[in-house]
Amino acid sequence: MKPQLGVCYYPEHWPEAQWPDDAARMVETGLEWVRIGEFAWSRLEPNEGDLRWEWLDRAVEVLGAAGLKVVMGTPTATPPRWVCEKHPDMFALDANGHVRGFGSRRHYCFSHEGYCAEAVRITRLTAERYGRNPHIAAWQTDNEYGCHDTVISYSDAACTAFRIWLEQRYGNIGALNDAWGNVFWSMEYRHFGEVFLPNLTVTEPNPSHVLDFQRFSSDQVVQFNRAQAEVLRELTDAPLIHNYMGRTLEFDHFKVGDDLDVASWDSYPLGFLEDRSDQPEAFKQQFARQGDPDFQAFHHDIYRAVGKGRWWVMEQQPGPVNWAPHNPDPLPGMARLWAWEAFAHGAEAVLYFRWRQAPMAQEQMHSGLLRPDSVAAPALGEAAQVAAEAAHLDLADTGAPVALVFDYESAWAWNAQPQGAEFDYFRLVFDFYKALRKLGLSIDIVPPSCTDLSPWQMVVIPGLLHWGALKSALEAYEGVVVAGPRTASKTADMQIPIPMGPNMPGVDATVARVESLRPDMPIMLDQGGTFQFWREVVEGRSLEDARDGHPARVGTARRQYLAGWPDERALHRILADACDEASLPTLDLPEGLRVRDIGAWRFAINYANRAWKLSKHIEGAPSGRIAPADVSWWLK
Amino acid sequence: MKPQLGVCYYPEHWPEAQWPDDAARMVETGLEWVRIGEFAWSRLEPNEGDLRWEWLDRAVEVLGAAGLKVVMGTPTATPPRWVCEKHPDMFALDANGHVRGFGSRRHYCFSHEGYCAEAVRITRLTAERYGRNPHIAAWQTDNEYGCHDTVISYSDAACTAFRIWLEQRYGNIGALNDAWGNVFWSMEYRHFGEVFLPNLTVTEPNPSHVLDFQRFSSDQVVQFNRAQAEVLRELTDAPLIHNYMGRTLEFDHFKVGDDLDVASWDSYPLGFLEDRSDQPEAFKQQFARQGDPDFQAFHHDIYRAVGKGRWWVMEQQPGPVNWAPHNPDPLPGMARLWAWEAFAHGAEAVLYFRWRQAPMAQEQMHSGLLRPDSVAAPALGEAAQVAAEAAHLDLADTGAPVALVFDYESAWAWNAQPQGAEFDYFRLVFDFYKALRKLGLSIDIVPPSCTDLSPWQMVVIPGLLHWGALKSALEAYEGVVVAGPRTASKTADMQIPIPMGPNMPGVDATVARVESLRPDMPIMLDQGGTFQFWREVVEGRSLEDARDGHPARVGTARRQYLAGWPDERALHRILADACDEASLPTLDLPEGLRVRDIGAWRFAINYANRAWKLSKHIEGAPSGRIAPADVSWWLK
Amino acid sequence: MKPQLGVCYYPEHWPEAQWPDDAARMVETGLEWVRIGEFAWSRLEPNEGDLRWEWLDRAVEVLGAAGLKVVMGTPTATPPRWVCEKHPDMFALDANGHVRGFGSRRHYCFSHEGYCAEAVRITRLTAERYGRNPHIAAWQTDNEYGCHDTVISYSDAACTAFRIWLEQRYGNIGALNDAWGNVFWSMEYRHFGEVFLPNLTVTEPNPSHVLDFQRFSSDQVVQFNRAQAEVLRELTDAPLIHNYMGRTLEFDHFKVGDDLDVASWDSYPLGFLEDRSDQPEAFKQQFARQGDPDFQAFHHDIYRAVGKGRWWVMEQQPGPVNWAPHNPDPLPGMARLWAWEAFAHGAEAVLYFRWRQAPMAQEQMHSGLLRPDSVAAPALGEAAQVAAEAAHLDLADTGAPVALVFDYESAWAWNAQPQGAEFDYFRLVFDFYKALRKLGLSIDIVPPSCTDLSPWQMVVIPGLLHWGALKSALEAYEGVVVAGPRTASKTADMQIPIPMGPNMPGVDATVARVESLRPDMPIMLDQGGTFQFWREVVEGRSLEDARDGHPARVGTARRQYLAGWPDERALHRILADACDEASLPTLDLPEGLRVRDIGAWRFAINYANRAWKLSKHIEGAPSGRIAPADVSWWLK
Ligand SMILES: [Zn+2]
Ligand SMILES: [Zn+2]
Ligand SMILES: [Zn+2]
Repeated sequence: MKPQLGVCYYPEHWPEAQWPDDAARMVETGLEWVRIGEFAWSRLEPNEGDLRWEWLDRAVEVLGAAGLKVVMGTPTATPPRWVCEKHPDMFALDANGHVRGFGSRRHYCFSHEGYCAEAVRITRLTAERYGRNPHIAAWQTDNEYGCHDTVISYSDAACTAFRIWLEQRYGNIGALNDAWGNVFWSMEYRHFGEVFLPNLTVTEPNPSHVLDFQRFSSDQVVQFNRAQAEVLRELTDAPLIHNYMGRTLEFDHFKVGDDLDVASWDSYPLGFLEDRSDQPEAFKQQFARQGDPDFQAFHHDIYRAVGKGRWWVMEQQPGPVNWAPHNPDPLPGMARLWAWEAFAHGAEAVLYFRWRQAPMAQEQMHSGLLRPDSVAAPALGEAAQVAAEAAHLDLADTGAPVALVFDYESAWAWNAQPQGAEFDYFRLVFDFYKALRKLGLSIDIVPPSCTDLSPWQMVVIPGLLHWGALKSALEAYEGVVVAGPRTASKTADMQIPIPMGPNMPGVDATVARVESLRPDMPIMLDQGGTFQFWREVVEGRSLEDARDGHPARVGTARRQYLAGWPDERALHRILADACDEASLPTLDLPEGLRVRDIGAWRFAINYANRAWKLSKHIEGAPSGRIAPADVSWWLK
Repeated sequence: MKPQLGVCYYPEHWPEAQWPDDAARMVETGLEWVRIGEFAWSRLEPNEGDLRWEWLDRAVEVLGAAGLKVVMGTPTATPPRWVCEKHPDMFALDANGHVRGFGSRRHYCFSHEGYCAEAVRITRLTAERYGRNPHIAAWQTDNEYGCHDTVISYSDAACTAFRIWLEQRYGNIGALNDAWGNVFWSMEYRHFGEVFLPNLTVTEPNPSHVLDFQRFSSDQVVQFNRAQAEVLRELTDAPLIHNYMGRTLEFDHFKVGDDLDVASWDSYPLGFLEDRSDQPEAFKQQFARQGDPDFQAFHHDIYRAVGKGRWWVMEQQPGPVNWAPHNPDPLPGMARLWAWEAFAHGAEAVLYFRWRQAPMAQEQMHSGLLRPDSVAAPALGEAAQVAAEAAHLDLADTGAPVALVFDYESAWAWNAQPQGAEFDYFRLVFDFYKALRKLGLSIDIVPPSCTDLSPWQMVVIPGLLHWGALKSALEAYEGVVVAGPRTASKTADMQIPIPMGPNMPGVDATVARVESLRPDMPIMLDQGGTFQFWREVVEGRSLEDARDGHPARVGTARRQYLAGWPDERALHRILADACDEASLPTLDLPEGLRVRDIGAWRFAINYANRAWKLSKHIEGAPSGRIAPADVSWWLK
Repeated sequence: MKPQLGVCYYPEHWPEAQWPDDAARMVETGLEWVRIGEFAWSRLEPNEGDLRWEWLDRAVEVLGAAGLKVVMGTPTATPPRWVCEKHPDMFALDANGHVRGFGSRRHYCFSHEGYCAEAVRITRLTAERYGRNPHIAAWQTDNEYGCHDTVISYSDAACTAFRIWLEQRYGNIGALNDAWGNVFWSMEYRHFGEVFLPNLTVTEPNPSHVLDFQRFSSDQVVQFNRAQAEVLRELTDAPLIHNYMGRTLEFDHFKVGDDLDVASWDSYPLGFLEDRSDQPEAFKQQFARQGDPDFQAFHHDIYRAVGKGRWWVMEQQPGPVNWAPHNPDPLPGMARLWAWEAFAHGAEAVLYFRWRQAPMAQEQMHSGLLRPDSVAAPALGEAAQVAAEAAHLDLADTGAPVALVFDYESAWAWNAQPQGAEFDYFRLVFDFYKALRKLGLSIDIVPPSCTDLSPWQMVVIPGLLHWGALKSALEAYEGVVVAGPRTASKTADMQIPIPMGPNMPGVDATVARVESLRPDMPIMLDQGGTFQFWREVVEGRSLEDARDGHPARVGTARRQYLAGWPDERALHRILADACDEASLPTLDLPEGLRVRDIGAWRFAINYANRAWKLSKHIEGAPSGRIAPADVSWWLK
């Protein structure tokens, strides 16, 4: 498949007379896709029932006639003021009970039936108008579910819906009381109508309560999206897409993805490094103009899994953004590099956000491919370069050798009960991902519902809440497995299982007790590195001890359980050894240099501020140096 | 008295079939006490008036028959959901006016008359059932008053009750206006109905208003507890106990204690070090597996005073807890050491919390003497060791040589008006306590209501709000006194007295002015060490000057006033000199090693990570080394 | 003009028998002014309509008869409880919707019509009583508008008034939608009644919305003050004054000042250094007892501009205050130094706050000229020294050579859209001010409405939102101009202008793009120093490049635009060079030493902890050393 480029465009922001020039310039740059419409509701329906399609008809025609394929967005992330007047209780409430009202975006509660009906209505109207339009080649539902912490709502609508959800899950209140262990602290309910949302409690609420509320909240997103997807399926044959957001874990992306054809995400490497990274300040400084070398790759791999192989970058940062604590310029070349990193992970398309920087409102400081005065911004030329380079390239992902299990429920569970201040599921899994990627490996993300692990030579399972379907898959699996810490330490109801975990196929071990560690009290390991933040006292055959005599790893060389959270050094060593065991060749990549294999191609991508001699670090690489922010690819 | 051990147990959490084994195993371990019932309301009365005593009857019988003495708790800290349905406004409100609702524990406002009546009702029913049961050897009222900041409530019920309380205190509104100085900023009231609670003000409220609200809130706790105590007195002859919580200062424990027979507290050394210590991070790292060497001792001494000599540890941490930012394992031996530290301070009993780690709900990560799968956790063996060691020991406290005055009102006053960000009454008093204890002294805590100081050779009075009853006691006292800083700098109404403080018997001195100091601007003292955080310019006979020429200490060698907050070095020196003056021998204990005398016995307790040669540091100690986490005792 | 001293006094706090002594002692100290009345409403009108002037009549008479000139304050900053009972919705709401109620001060919403009428009523009654009283020589309106963040209110009253204000500004809703760019995110309104306040939004609100709300909120303060001024004008000929607060930017002081005769401010050098300074901790430690050497001067210059030449210090810190995180004693001499710094900037009068430290209520720890027991505090003698020194001195400001533009709207705009965490308008302007002052310059602050810049040899314009009236002034100006960064980067509507900024007269340059920088990634400049926090890529003739090759300064030597936020070293160099260009002689003052010229006099003021040899650092200075906290002046 040839990599394709595109851009996000807001015809309603610009004079109609400018549209043809814009379209022509997009095509000239080598862009093939243009996304429109996702925030235009107030222009499509300025008053209830007063529909104004004509301008959008003309915009689609101008873009399509220029040769662009259009992604049409449903405008449901930004209901106009009149919708809010009609449904004054449609807003989410925060944990303190404060309204999250009109004036920006995503101002709706997923559980509000009135608003859900409005969303379906405008989706149907839009799809009726454009479902068969030949220029509309894909549809986007809503925009960035969960952005700005909008999955969880403590509204009355959510409370009502939660009770119904619980009744469907548990059937009778006794089952719920048992599952949550409500005999503890006399928290037992007599009927579902007595259950409230887990906010405004005196001290922490029951983690089982929190976990179920999180599951419910995720299901509300799935249902909201499905309602749009069902309408669209009736009226269009174009693929359906949602654009997910980085490190947004409050709903199960796999489940939303099951109702769509393509997964996409919005990739803002510099913004994300500044506003949602666990890395130390020195790291942030070092990569302030490049982004974390692994953060994008990790999400690319997640969304390849969510899209079952079909995925895009729907929004690609082109220059400084407006929303992080600091918003520096990318290094020259990064707008190109980021696109290639995506293509190297199998992206079908990468769309830059946005065509022209808007002079007004919240995002006026967010750069685009053009400046507000229509002069080219630096990213325009880089996009053109990518388009030229991609013109004759055919990339097809054929699967990676390593599977890394990623599970949204585990994120919710450990968030409900971290037990140590630093315990964060994303951070834990990302540490493992980073370590694998520094070893030069290409990685597939696998959901916990996976029932066949045979495609992979190695499977890595950090911090999984409970085995679920994976247990029988593991029983049948013959490859190398690295699991833990904390993996399978709970039941699905968020209780401690008896027998106690991990109950891991092929590993005869029991976690006797656990402790969370201050950052200043790491546990030294015999073979180098430490456990940080978290350690477990495990009974079982030791593969390696900690300096204090407790086993650090138990099981066998091909199937091991880690009794703690390894630091970077320990993780590198442990995973390198596991790769040896799995006969997986590894590299020892220098700072900022990364590799990704796709089909017969190998990509080298340099996030460092300095050049590297490629062939010194990557066997089989072409001779010569790779400059900062540069990309190189060759046939393996 | 022989030290006794026990444990907290929740029969309602476990199958009835398991009770006999549990009871037998407790006895086998050497435990004599078992506390039950304090969170069981939803099982005792699942619906209003629907009482289910039978299971508890059987549990008491099983435990009692095994030879255990039972502490029965009133279940009022966790009203079931139906109680909250019946009294929908029974919850406390936080300072922002948000409800602190159902879903965890302590979800009630002490001023809500409806809930108070429910609490008395269930207490009466429980006492009627078990008041004369031969296995019930003590009663606990409620559980951890004030835990999770639950003393203060900004509810309507609290406002109404506060107005009545004020009217009783002041009689007429003019007296209140005078006492609070309400002419300032035109805050004068015309009648009591115009007074609101001191929250939601534009800038800080009147400290006199805050102090009275704090006094009122404390009195509400006293009254809530007294109502239960009165019912219990009618129906049982067993001693009444409450289990107080560490560093919980929002109500006057001495006043609650006046209605009870025994004081107890819940001692979680590692959790408290992590979540409520002022010590620097390096200290927390050093003692992360042992706890602060003085924190437990300080509370032991407080509760010996609150219980007028009779006190217990009702809950003793056995392993990692679940509620601190980090929850490490204790060093092997600490579960034994902590018990001995308590017995060395005169505890009648120490009960570990809890028997078996629960697999469900909020505290599922809180360790017990048993793991969730009933295998022994490390603390079980340590408890058995303590029981064996204690079997033939007879300990009786005969009083310490030093009195340290501790006053809840002072904590409230300085919290209402710290004047410097670091000024915290607990921290100040605890600094003095630590210094005394590092000098090898045993200490008695004394309330400000003390009228006879003659039992002590030395009295230390840091930061006392106003003299009150202590003034005439001091006038009659012939021992050494060290007071200040800030002592007696206010009237009981939280005004500056004229003549200005300290008006200290035997010390002719006036505090001309005060200043609070940034942590980076200590004031050097002539004889070593510094004043930190707080310093006063005092007119009086100087015993020592600061480097800037102002007196640092005034008065006489036997009666001195400190014009600042001494740092560790200065405090060590000043108190050592005062001990000399009082003919009190002192030690110079190395890091982590502590001493406590009880009757004819001297205990040495090693909180350090390293061993110490005992006789090198403690004259008269047996030869040999004391290992980390070890305890040694001998007859002086 | 001879510098005059005074003091703030609260006769209602003290027994009437003490007034004559107090008055005599004030006069004896050399004080000429006494401010009274501004918090006395509950004593003037304890119940509605129940007016009690007699005590205040007597107080005025006592003070006046002693020879003091009285400043009478309107008591509207502290409405009594009964006013709040009458107008229960008169309070401001915070951004979360919480009431900011009775119990301290400034508990009113500027938009509440009922309260505004009460304020006018009590002002009228007070002015009717004292408007022609011969002892009343000036009036103060209210007290410290905006203190405790009281300008902004999210009340219903504010929402209603905001809609009216918007309708007056925009005429029709389409104009508002265009000005705010509401097509973005479908934020368009159909009528003004659909607009709410910009709080409780899901993510950040539209910065144009925020800016207009800020303008509205400022106008409400202006209108509130004007209503009092109009009443006072009818009834008195004495000058009208308001006492502004340090670093309080939420309303336009220039506009409030337009309705008054004299500007004043409340100068608390130590409190402000602790609670509202951007300087690093080491700086705060160094000047903890002196205050920032430039903070007072900067405000003096602002208020000289606000008062169009007539200005006072209405409250001068005399010793420790009570409201900062730490409240140290000033160095001996500072109470004198601060007064002289003010006089050197042209102050007509400096009043110490307060006469005697109050023993009660919120400010009982705030020092005065007297201790609570009426003994002299250190500042009393220093005040007397100032009075003696000033007795035969005549100071008249004749204008400074440098103009620094300061604009409240710019503060609001960059607060609404900082784009980088450190971007703060006050901080930026103050950095320029500090650099100029370290060069020994005297500075005039100039509002953006200035239409004639010819009085100054150099004009400095950092971070101005948009040119406005200043553009034609600049076109006509022949002096040296230094502008930027960010200057004129927006339209008045908070949109990006086309053509893009700065559109600066005499500088042919365009800011192509901007970035905000982490504090750890400064941009090195070719000639020394760095850009921090903010940098711009500018197209234009480069005067100096950054090390990365982009221009750092563009334009000409006499008219330059700075493409970033210079650090201290760069700013010193750039402004020194600009002074050379403007033929302005500069000094290179050592740490803490400052100079201010007024008329023919030059003042040297030493904030350092050490002495300096004056003539070594200041050409023409008298020989000898200037001690810490000392002041020296001589005829140039
Ligand atoms: Zn029995
Ligand atoms: Zn709230
Ligand atoms: Zn007169």
